[in-house]
Amino acid sequence: MKTIGVVTSGGDAPGMNAAIRAVVRIAYSKGLNVLGFEKGWEGLMSNTFRELTPRSVGGIINLGGTILLTSRCQEFRAKNGTKKAAETLDLNNVEGFVVIGGDGSFKGACELSNETDALIVGIPATIDNDVFGTDETIGFDTAVNTAVAEIDKIRDTAISHERIFIVEVMGRTRGFLASTVGLTVGAEVILVPEEKYNIEETLKTIKANTAKGKRSGIIVAAEGVGDTQKLAEEIEKHTDADVKLSILGYVQRGGNPTARSRLLASLFADEAVRLLLQEQRSRIVGLQNGKITNIDLKKSCETRKPLDLSLLKLARVLAT
Amino acid sequence: MKTIGVVTSGGDAPGMNAAIRAVVRIAYSKGLNVLGFEKGWEGLMSNTFRELTPRSVGGIINLGGTILLTSRCQEFRAKNGTKKAAETLDLNNVEGFVVIGGDGSFKGACELSNETDALIVGIPATIDNDVFGTDETIGFDTAVNTAVAEIDKIRDTAISHERIFIVEVMGRTRGFLASTVGLTVGAEVILVPEEKYNIEETLKTIKANTAKGKRSGIIVAAEGVGDTQKLAEEIEKHTDADVKLSILGYVQRGGNPTARSRLLASLFADEAVRLLLQEQRSRIVGLQNGKITNIDLKKSCETRKPLDLSLLKLARVLAT
Amino acid sequence: MKTIGVVTSGGDAPGMNAAIRAVVRIAYSKGLNVLGFEKGWEGLMSNTFRELTPRSVGGIINLGGTILLTSRCQEFRAKNGTKKAAETLDLNNVEGFVVIGGDGSFKGACELSNETDALIVGIPATIDNDVFGTDETIGFDTAVNTAVAEIDKIRDTAISHERIFIVEVMGRTRGFLASTVGLTVGAEVILVPEEKYNIEETLKTIKANTAKGKRSGIIVAAEGVGDTQKLAEEIEKHTDADVKLSILGYVQRGGNPTARSRLLASLFADEAVRLLLQEQRSRIVGLQNGKITNIDLKKSCETRKPLDLSLLKLARVLAT
Amino acid sequence: MKTIGVVTSGGDAPGMNAAIRAVVRIAYSKGLNVLGFEKGWEGLMSNTFRELTPRSVGGIINLGGTILLTSRCQEFRAKNGTKKAAETLDLNNVEGFVVIGGDGSFKGACELSNETDALIVGIPATIDNDVFGTDETIGFDTAVNTAVAEIDKIRDTAISHERIFIVEVMGRTRGFLASTVGLTVGAEVILVPEEKYNIEETLKTIKANTAKGKRSGIIVAAEGVGDTQKLAEEIEKHTDADVKLSILGYVQRGGNPTARSRLLASLFADEAVRLLLQEQRSRIVGLQNGKITNIDLKKSCETRKPLDLSLLKLARVLAT
Repeated sequence: MKTIGVVTSGGDAPGMNAAIRAVVRIAYSKGLNVLGFEKGWEGLMSNTFRELTPRSVGGIINLGGTILLTSRCQEFRAKNGTKKAAETLDLNNVEGFVVIGGDGSFKGACELSNETDALIVGIPATIDNDVFGTDETIGFDTAVNTAVAEIDKIRDTAISHERIFIVEVMGRTRGFLASTVGLTVGAEVILVPEEKYNIEETLKTIKANTAKGKRSGIIVAAEGVGDTQKLAEEIEKHTDADVKLSILGYVQRGGNPTARSRLLASLFADEAVRLLLQEQRSRIVGLQNGKITNIDLKKSCETRKPLDLSLLKLARVLAT
Repeated sequence: MKTIGVVTSGGDAPGMNAAIRAVVRIAYSKGLNVLGFEKGWEGLMSNTFRELTPRSVGGIINLGGTILLTSRCQEFRAKNGTKKAAETLDLNNVEGFVVIGGDGSFKGACELSNETDALIVGIPATIDNDVFGTDETIGFDTAVNTAVAEIDKIRDTAISHERIFIVEVMGRTRGFLASTVGLTVGAEVILVPEEKYNIEETLKTIKANTAKGKRSGIIVAAEGVGDTQKLAEEIEKHTDADVKLSILGYVQRGGNPTARSRLLASLFADEAVRLLLQEQRSRIVGLQNGKITNIDLKKSCETRKPLDLSLLKLARVLAT
Repeated sequence: MKTIGVVTSGGDAPGMNAAIRAVVRIAYSKGLNVLGFEKGWEGLMSNTFRELTPRSVGGIINLGGTILLTSRCQEFRAKNGTKKAAETLDLNNVEGFVVIGGDGSFKGACELSNETDALIVGIPATIDNDVFGTDETIGFDTAVNTAVAEIDKIRDTAISHERIFIVEVMGRTRGFLASTVGLTVGAEVILVPEEKYNIEETLKTIKANTAKGKRSGIIVAAEGVGDTQKLAEEIEKHTDADVKLSILGYVQRGGNPTARSRLLASLFADEAVRLLLQEQRSRIVGLQNGKITNIDLKKSCETRKPLDLSLLKLARVLAT
Repeated sequence: MKTIGVVTSGGDAPGMNAAIRAVVRIAYSKGLNVLGFEKGWEGLMSNTFRELTPRSVGGIINLGGTILLTSRCQEFRAKNGTKKAAETLDLNNVEGFVVIGGDGSFKGACELSNETDALIVGIPATIDNDVFGTDETIGFDTAVNTAVAEIDKIRDTAISHERIFIVEVMGRTRGFLASTVGLTVGAEVILVPEEKYNIEETLKTIKANTAKGKRSGIIVAAEGVGDTQKLAEEIEKHTDADVKLSILGYVQRGGNPTARSRLLASLFADEAVRLLLQEQRSRIVGLQNGKITNIDLKKSCETRKPLDLSLLKLARVLAT
């Protein structure tokens, strides 16, 4: 193997740059050249790339976003998209291809693997943490800490005004971000799509808290649970509480990566390059039981990662 | 003078605790007792207060929110509210009364001053910075920096995805927060209520930036400019841009106060206690031309503070 | 079991408060009372404690330090110290005792366990991460991120002045903090006590980096490696480099705990209370292979936790 | 005027990049070209520069350090240094020259102004805030907030261990940083070079605080006051206190500039370009009485900026 390619795809996640840096530098130490395709799959459609060297990835370990840019590419998803992508890899003699992204990107990588001889390895990077095959994705720890820092601030105003705040966090259809954030800010209520939404129970908790003398509260809701504005109105209707809604938004996707996101990025990249050199085909790397490992790319795409509901139980006890 | 009262009222602002601490400790050094009324004007309606001592305000200089709690009190605004408040001050022999809050709180303080013999002094504390008589309010610098830190993060994802982000910041009906934040994040467009909204101009700027090769952009919009969701849709309709909206929300009101908010809190408190000891009636303290000063409370309430539009002009040149 | 005690001991670590909160609330949910002994072992010498309730531990999940205070107690280490501590537990009918601390505190807990019938469980909390039986201690992730944020700032000035900075981080006699920090800031050189110090190799690296065109550099050194001032002088003597030293110091021990430190605190506390209710004797809880588990207290005290040297190897490749 | 030059010189300060960006973009809007000389005066010795355009200064407003690099240049200080610098300006047809730096850099600028026809304007940027002619320099607010955030963390561990911490902050021979930091962290003692050092008074304060029940304390000392290690030992010798020393160091010079440092950078640059276009010679811009203004460069260099000692008095009352 002489040349590998690397791409960041889908929603950006803090630590993607640390992963690019690590892929490039490790690959170089093994005698490989690295081509960085730009704007996700779009770079494979238009054959847009630049050569990445150890020097060209200097000074990016601590930067949010991705120097390779990213996109959600319509063309790639179309009939001949993967074929065109395969041709681009072939054209540039790319024998190994590292895809840094989330669930959706890996589905694309899976399709691409059917069309190309290049070996494909996925590095999971998404703040949603919803990739099967890894306990944690690059960017998740950063997004959690960003949300926690925000909610620590919001609690100041919640307490001063004796209010209840519903804070909507990201996570698309899943509740990984919401459950970890909820537990670590000490949220009184945590709502995730994986548990059936029950307004009665929420109202009961709020009333019980009022009875205990708690006069402010934080409800952390995953964006996947639906209309949080309506929830705010419902609570106001059925209690005496003054309820405000705060949607944290895109700030959760940016910012300097935490040490943990940078560490995962480095370890994942190391494993990814190792797999390519071993000529392993269609794998994603991951963290399982505290160890770096890898699983089949297709299996990852086809399996739903379970959410640990025991965290939510514990969070409820802790928010007593 | 033997006893003074202190209250925080209206929306909370970072640095209110630093102001409470400073009022209490300075007052004590002059031989005064301090009663802290709770939950804004509500504490005057229900005669709820606690004595504050130098020790009881220890360890709060760096905390967001207000240990005295705050509220927007309906009862006070009603016909006999100010009378009842005056009676409470009289009942507790409060001869001087420090109101820490914003525009709305000072209007209340103004009405109260007509009903009581107690001397009233206002300390401007609001993230909106919309109080006439001071160039800067306690909490403004903190809110600006919070918003700037958020937008620095959002820019990561804006650049990675080559998107335009509309970021809505607080400020109620005014554009102080938006203009300072916009200039200091290098926003391509800044929208404030004090300038007529012009979609054509915004579109022209976006298209010119695209022509120059800028492929991402930040639009900072004051909440007072109206429907930012609609603005996002308009821009998407008339350009090729991918536009996202992020509403920063209540996080701007919380968090540890910056050094500047703590410093202003200390200097304002010093001036406020000085005015009370000089038996000055119905003043608010402020920062003007870099100096601590004070003006008539009524004048402050009745005068609209002008926004320096030259900042916006400069911001436009800088966002070239 | 009706009553348990809890103490924080040794150097403070961010997340100790989150652990206290979790112990108290989980214990209460099981019908237990909790006594919080103050100032570490000193509270057992002087029988100083307060009852902790779910309400009295509210609002502390995000605070650094420890509301129970801590100390390094001379008296406890003396001959009859542990006997006296055992008597205090007996006097207050403490049947289970949770020690939140590090290596040194667990040695004390071990001795105490020989003198008392109370069941003792240790919760590892130290920024040094040097406790055998757990892959990670409460506070470690926070200290790592604090150091990383500092060094990100120092790199600004290193680059602007084309300087080399030696940054000394904590960790006492061990290199856990230094190796994780070094890798995640992209340090050019990482020095830990677990590897033999070799000035020649460091000089070679610096010269090679200069040859490559790198004109600034970060050397992360564990405090355990010895005289960093002398190292700075040596490097200046043997290269053209302008070398500065920065000792990060106590800031690494304070600050709001990261989400991960709070999460570990909650999970460890859950396990600790579970062990007490199962009447298990002399255990410490821990994280191993990504799972919450526990091991024998004495074994933990007597075994040296190995440092993963492969991280340092990877860091070297990445700092190419 | 067609071409201006810009240089950053001396110690770096957060906001220097924001100033470079603003100078370049404002100059371009007036039809000027801008040459950025590298590594401070060294760039003038070796004629090393690059042309700066509105695009080449994009994305730097929020970065610490300086993209033009900086140095303390020996050659420039030598006999013919200024002559050589003047020749370089002449060679490149530089008619106006903007020096972004502190006191030392302005002394150099002063000497240079005697040798060249180019108009010279200084923009004060130093964390020391010791430039006469401006109430505040670029970078000062950032350094203050960095130090305050650090000390907020150190206080966690001070309280938990009931210790006294001496925190040494930067500021070279002056106490601007120490006095503002000390007041805004609520330091029990503030030591600056402008006030005679008196160990007796410090000991008295510490003992009085102990008597009041305060069991931890922060002493903020400017680096200019001398041997802080010895001070720590003295206090330990004469009191029961456990005293630790923390030297904040270079972290105070790095990091993302605060909003205020960015704002000052923008306003100062605007004034600087305006002065050049008005053909004013040898000025420095500044903030005085809340307004942007300018004074004679030579006067600035020759006048010692006074420290407002009333701040220290107030801080003492507040730390009661």
